[in-house]
Parts: sequence; structure tokens; C-alpha cells
Amino acid sequence: MTSADVEQIASNAAAAAPTWSRIPLNDRARLLVNTANQLESARAELVALASEETGLGEERLNNELTRTVVQARLFGDVAARGEFLDVRIDEHDDQFVLGPRPDLRRYLVPIGPVLNFAASNFPFAFSVFGGDSVSALAAGCPVIVKLHSGHPRLGARTTQLVQEAVRDEGHPDGVFQSISGQAAGVELLQDPRIRAGSFTGSTRIGTYLARIAAERPTPIPFYGELGSVNPVFVFPGALGDDEALAQGLAASVSSSAGQLCTKPGFVFVPAGTGWASTVAEALSPTPAHRLLTPSISTSFEESVDSALRAGVTGVLRGSVRTEDGLAWVTPSLLQTDTAHLLAHPDLADELFGPATILVEYEHIDQALTAATQLFPGNLTCTIHAADNDDQVDVERVLAWGIEHAGRVLYGGWPTGVGVTGAQQHGGPWPATTDAQSTAVGTASIQRFLRPVALQNVPERLRPTVLADANHWKVPQSRNAEGPSQAWGDSVRAVEP
Amino acid sequence: MTSADVEQIASNAAAAAPTWSRIPLNDRARLLVNTANQLESARAELVALASEETGLGEERLNNELTRTVVQARLFGDVAARGEFLDVRIDEHDDQFVLGPRPDLRRYLVPIGPVLNFAASNFPFAFSVFGGDSVSALAAGCPVIVKLHSGHPRLGARTTQLVQEAVRDEGHPDGVFQSISGQAAGVELLQDPRIRAGSFTGSTRIGTYLARIAAERPTPIPFYGELGSVNPVFVFPGALGDDEALAQGLAASVSSSAGQLCTKPGFVFVPAGTGWASTVAEALSPTPAHRLLTPSISTSFEESVDSALRAGVTGVLRGSVRTEDGLAWVTPSLLQTDTAHLLAHPDLADELFGPATILVEYEHIDQALTAATQLFPGNLTCTIHAADNDDQVDVERVLAWGIEHAGRVLYGGWPTGVGVTGAQQHGGPWPATTDAQSTAVGTASIQRFLRPVALQNVPERLRPTVLADANHWKVPQSRNAEGPSQAWGDSVRAVEP
Repeated sequence: MTSADVEQIASNAAAAAPTWSRIPLNDRARLLVNTANQLESARAELVALASEETGLGEERLNNELTRTVVQARLFGDVAARGEFLDVRIDEHDDQFVLGPRPDLRRYLVPIGPVLNFAASNFPFAFSVFGGDSVSALAAGCPVIVKLHSGHPRLGARTTQLVQEAVRDEGHPDGVFQSISGQAAGVELLQDPRIRAGSFTGSTRIGTYLARIAAERPTPIPFYGELGSVNPVFVFPGALGDDEALAQGLAASVSSSAGQLCTKPGFVFVPAGTGWASTVAEALSPTPAHRLLTPSISTSFEESVDSALRAGVTGVLRGSVRTEDGLAWVTPSLLQTDTAHLLAHPDLADELFGPATILVEYEHIDQALTAATQLFPGNLTCTIHAADNDDQVDVERVLAWGIEHAGRVLYGGWPTGVGVTGAQQHGGPWPATTDAQSTAVGTASIQRFLRPVALQNVPERLRPTVLADANHWKVPQSRNAEGPSQAWGDSVRAVEP
Repeated sequence: MTSADVEQIASNAAAAAPTWSRIPLNDRARLLVNTANQLESARAELVALASEETGLGEERLNNELTRTVVQARLFGDVAARGEFLDVRIDEHDDQFVLGPRPDLRRYLVPIGPVLNFAASNFPFAFSVFGGDSVSALAAGCPVIVKLHSGHPRLGARTTQLVQEAVRDEGHPDGVFQSISGQAAGVELLQDPRIRAGSFTGSTRIGTYLARIAAERPTPIPFYGELGSVNPVFVFPGALGDDEALAQGLAASVSSSAGQLCTKPGFVFVPAGTGWASTVAEALSPTPAHRLLTPSISTSFEESVDSALRAGVTGVLRGSVRTEDGLAWVTPSLLQTDTAHLLAHPDLADELFGPATILVEYEHIDQALTAATQLFPGNLTCTIHAADNDDQVDVERVLAWGIEHAGRVLYGGWPTGVGVTGAQQHGGPWPATTDAQSTAVGTASIQRFLRPVALQNVPERLRPTVLADANHWKVPQSRNAEGPSQAWGDSVRAVEP
């Protein structure tokens, strides 16, 4: 891909932006729903391609495609309903406490062309027509996807299907495009016509790209989902049913060969219970699974080796079979204690693949101290506790989770991220580059919007969603603050 | 202020964060309202101090204090109502289209200690207890204000009043603190305990601080309101009442000696109407006004001189009287045309003080071309047009404004920013470092919040605002997406 290609793609996106941002919300929604239907029709072909290129199983890939299709339809509804526009109208008010107030109407407008970097580990849900793309399109932004080198043919074919749908609906080509190659991705991220970036991948590359976005002559928001070790805190009471708990952990660690951003990487457990052998037993029947790419294979093996060299105990050492640079692996289980972990902070790096580290603690304080020092930001934090555990300690871990993660689970396992309104997939650095955003769920649309207020603009010139006529019937919040003379009243009302 | 002082202040703020974030919303609100009342009681003393230190007139300062007090009360209501928490609850659902769904409850939590850099030009409304402080406090964040060197005694006295209110209400001292000196500000901005920064001031310093925030080992959001030239587009029809229009512009340019971030810096006018002399007449009776600081005085004089050296016509050359490094000035009016402006892009820098540049155009396209090239991001954009102007052209300028500004006015003048729910005070770079945020209005609280979702956490452990019991009666949105089987339906419903 040459610089001229990149230039053409940026130019197409910029040209499509005004058109795509202004079409009726229902037309925006229709493209999302119709494209989802296209992908559904091509299911067999797409899953076969994805399976061949990624080594992820067909069952998992079928589920992922279903999730991707459902997600696109959901964002069709989000676009059509228009709640995301956050329309606020303050009508003209001569009695305003600070003097006559003009008519003021605020809404969110599309930020402009968005560049999405596709993920290796979700060839559908975080790639060409994944969450970043459909939320940006729903917001009214043209999208360019930088395809992932791990599944180039799937990327090209999915692009083709999306582009056919765009053409069928009569939208300009610049609404949806894709590019290949890291150099092209970096060049485009620096292009002034690109107004936001999103990314799912490693901390190293995500940090590099975030820095580029921040240091442009005109900086842009960059939403990177980077690394997360997703700590789990197991209280003694939760080991009452130690086998069921071990089965749950084993499934969460080994599913998709542990190549999930929410895989539990560190599990704090009470010392001396011998639970590690129960977990090892639960893990050992796991069949070998291919890792996604040669570089993931290499870094997985190196990470496990270096943990062992650092004195961590190998409770279960998984097998590794390499073919054409790709590794087929079975899960590994490692174990250490809080003191050893604190003495070897390098262990805290995310271990991407089917392995987890149990960390024994004598008192939950040791676990919290280690976690605070080594795992400052996470996508998730999981608590396993029972009614007979010290509830004050449980509350302390819950508070820790709220401070250091984007999602806190009580029971269950963090892998498997529902696409709903209340989902939060994002967390304090280094889990994400922007802890105020989410990459999954309807709130993810907020990443690609920017507020504008219109003052005293007459009805005939108002954008449809701000007009009193409100032809698209979007929610409009009017005079939400109430009469300003009363401000502070809700406080006085509760005084004793 | 030594490093040990800075260390102590960061430590106080971090220690106060959990307490302040968890107290009942009404108690949070009460501090805001009671502090506002304290400032109101000290009005005479504070206005006198501010007047002496800033040279802004007592009338303006009285109005500004009123605005500050009203704003704090408004944020008291915002805190108490709890709408800003954006609570979303997705109940457990066994029938969910992607398989059984857990109970998921999402809300916004305080981001942590916030460092606010006070502004020179708003000693009340953008300083110690200004918008950044009260929105951060309402969000549940401890606040540290870096006082402005232009009004140190007012800063210290206001700090004292706020801290007394904090103590009277029984909150920890770390809830509200202030520091002095640029070095201390920079040191604190780099402290890992600080979780967000906000700033109102020059593009040079704002860019410098934004870079520091982005390049920390743990980057943090930085909300800087920098420079804006606030272009005005005058259509021929609007010159029907040319004297009234000139009076309006003169008042907007000269109020507070033009030291307002929304002052109209460039006014595009039809060529050859001679309107410049009407504006000059309207400006000439303006009495001399002191500029805020010696450095503002110096840069104002230099900017006007360099514009004249660049070949811009001086229609009205204001007087300058300097005393102890401070300048008393009357307004200047400059004029050029679009071609000359495009040939001298240096002219596009903000001219902070009582001056504006009229730019003659033959056709509105020339104005739009110049504005696109030189004024890519603005706080405001203003349109003056009449029914007999080409409405397609008016719509094009409106669209330009929506793309390049945070607030677009039809008629009127951009100075004077109402504190309401629909206000937007922020715009594309370089107007602000984060175009997705606002520094004024209730939405400004969003800058200091971060989402967290709790999954399957039992009622007894849920934070009050997420619990079914909902003792504080905050708005809770339940299952907002509706049954997922229907997703995409709102689209199908509108198909022909």
C-alpha cells in the first residue's frame, strides 16, 4: 500500500464525512442492519476463512460472528433511537438568574473519520465490522479499518461484503474502507483528516500509537485497549466447592487458548489449601490449541519460561508443539506467593495465552498490597467469596476493584463480555489508554462524538434533531435544570 | 513551595479521595451550596481584592462573583440529583440472544484527585471555586487549585473561605487545597496521585501542560481551554442596521478590555461597505482599561504592532499608557482582506486584549476558505445574516461553524457564556485540548468521571446508587435496550 493509496483513502473518508453525518438516522441504522444480514448470509464462508487463518475453533467463531451480527443490529437501534445525541434544549428565558438567557441547543455530532486497528484475537467482533466500526458508523463517522496481518483474507472478504452493502444503500465509498500494513496505519493515524483512532492489542504497540495520536500537530483521541491481567481474589469460603471453582477457572483460562483480553492472569488464593492441584487436574484434559500468530507463540513460550526462571513453581507445565512457526499448546499452571511476586515485578506483565498464576496469601491485605503495586489498571477484577468470609474484607476488595478496574465481578469469570447498555470494557491505564471510555456496549458510541451548542439559531436553520419539529423523534431534554432561582433547593430540602 | 509541600498536598488529596467519593450525595451538595453562601457573605471583601489585583471593574467582578455562586449552587443540585452518575442496570436475563446474561450495573465513579490551573482573566468563575473546581467536587473528586500569579491574595483568601467550609462540614482537609508557583504545578501534574488536570490560559502553556499529562508513565486526561479567535461572519443583509451591529461588536470587543476567551477576534465583512468607520466610531468612546498582567500588556502591544507591520490597516489605533509594567489601553480596530490574511498566516494567532480585525470578502467562499485554513478550531462561531441573504450560503457557514467550533451563534455576540445544561464551552484544537469536553455548563462534570460496571454483585454489597433499594433516589435506567430479540426492529419498522 503506497502513500498515494493512503492519501486517496483519507481523501475518500473526508469527502464522505459530511454526507454520512447528515443522512436520516434511520438510513444510518439500515446500513448497519443490512450489513449484519449480509455477514449472516455469508456465515459458512466467513467462519471457514477465519478458522483457517486464526486457528480459533469453529464453534467459538460461529458464536463470535453471531455476537458481531447482534452487535451491529443493536447499534442500528442505537442510531435510530437517537438517545446517543444527548439533545439538551434550554429555551430562551428572560427571568434567568444571571440575566436574559438565549435559546441554547446542545447535541453531539460525529467527530469525523475514524481509524480502527483490528485485533488479532477477535477476527469478527473487534475487527472489520466489529464494535469499534459499528459504533463509529452509528455515530455518523466514516470508518477506515487497518486489517490485522493475522487474518488478511478474512479481512479483505469482510471489507468487500461491507462495501457492497454501502454501495447497495447508495452511500459514498468513503463511508467504509480498509487498509493493510503497519506503515500505512501509522501514516494514516498522522493524517489531519483522521479525527480519532481505536485499537485492540498489545501494550507496547498501543502505547506507541497513543503517543503518535497525542503528538500530532492536531492531537486526536485514541482509544486503545491494551494489556490487563484481570486479578481474581479467592476468599477461603469460596473454596467450599473447590472442584467447581477449579473447573470454572480452567474453562476461563483455556478457552480460545487463553487469548482473551479478560483472561484471569493472576488468582490470589489462601495459602496452604492445596487447591493448585485441583486446578491442575481441571486444566489437564484440555486438548492442544493453536495460538494465533508466530509472534504470539514465541512470546507465550518466553513468558512462561521467564516466569519459571524467576522462581515461580510450575504446577502444570503445558505441552508445546511447533509447526511452521505456529505453536499448538496445552495450558500451564504456575504458582507463587505474594512476597515472591512483589520481589519480581516483571512477573506482572500480561501472559497472553493459556496460563495463569496462582498467588498464595496469608492475609487478604498481602494480596491487596501486591495488586496495588503491580496491577494498577485492569479491564476486570473478580471476587470469589462466601457468606462466611469476613464481609469487611470482601468490601475492601470490592472497593479496590472499583478503583483499579472497569468491571468488577462477584463470582463467575471475566471472559465473555456481553454487548449491552450496562457493559464496561475499559479500565485504568495500562488496561486502556482512556479509562473514561468503553470498547463494548452501547456507551462505546460516545468515543466518536463531540458536543456542539447552537445559540438562537432559527427553527428553519436548525439541524433536524435540534428542531422543535423533531421529525426523527429523538429524545430532547428541555430546561432540565428547572428554574435557576431554585438552584441549591434540593440541598436545602434535605437539611434537618 | 517546596517539593515536600507538594508531596504533602498530593498525599492529603489521595487520602481524602475515598471518603469524599463515598459520602451521601446530599452532603457533597451541601458543601457546594454552603461554600457558595460563604463567598456571597464575603462579597465586598473579595470584589475589592479582585479589583485591586486584576484591574477588572467592580461591576464586572460583582457579576462574575454572582455567576460563580450561582454555578456552585447549580452543581449542588447536579450532585444531589445524581443524574450525572448515568446509572444503567441490565438485569439478569436467561433469554438473552447471546446466552444467559448476568446482572450488570454500570455507573460513573470519580476519577480521583484533580489539579486545576486557575485563569488570569476570571479570578472567580475560572479560579479557586470556579467551574472546574465545583464540577470536580460535585463529581466526587478532591481538588487542588494552582493559584494564578495575577491575583495571589484573592486566591489565598478564597482558598481560606473554601477550606473553612470544608472543615465546618467535617470533611478531611484534603478535599480542597491550593498551591502557588508554576514549578509546583508542573511537579504535581506529574504526581501519580493526580488523576486529571484542567487549565484555562494560553495555547503555549496549555500545550506544554497537555504534553506533560500525555507523557506521564500513567497518562491522565487534561482539559485545557486554550486560544480561540471566534470568527464572525457578517452577511450583507445584516448591515441593514449597521450602527446597532457596530455597537454590539464594540461592546463585545471592549468588555473586560477584550480579555475574554470568546472575544470575536476576526470579523468577515462584505467588501467596500465602509462599515469599519461605523465600528471605529462605536469603539472610540471606550475609556482606558487596565490589562490584567505585565505579560498580557506586553504581548497585546506586540501583537497589534506586528499586525500593522504585516500590512493590516489600522482603522482605529488605541492608546496605551504604561505604569509599573501594566498597560491602560483603549480598543484598536484593524482591517484587511481575505487574500492578505491568507498570505500572512501569522495574523491568525489570538490577539488577547481589546482589538479585533475586520476581514473584507468579495464572496463568502473566500471567507470560508480563509477560516478553514487559519481557524480550524474555535470556542465559538457567530453568524450575522438576514432573511434577504442567500440562505444556502448561510447554511454553509452554519455547517462550517458546527464543524469548527463548540458553539455557533445566529445573531448576538459570543462573549457572555451562560451556565446551563445546554452550554458548550470547548471546541476543536487549538480551542481546547479535548474537543469532547466542555468547561462550562452541567456537562462539564463528565470530565472528572470514569465508568465502572459491577457484575452479579449482591444487593448488600452494592454501592448505594446501584442498589435496588436506591436510598438516594438517583435515576436508574433499567434494561434500556429492551428485548435483544427485537434489535434492528426500529429499522425494519421504517422500511417502506
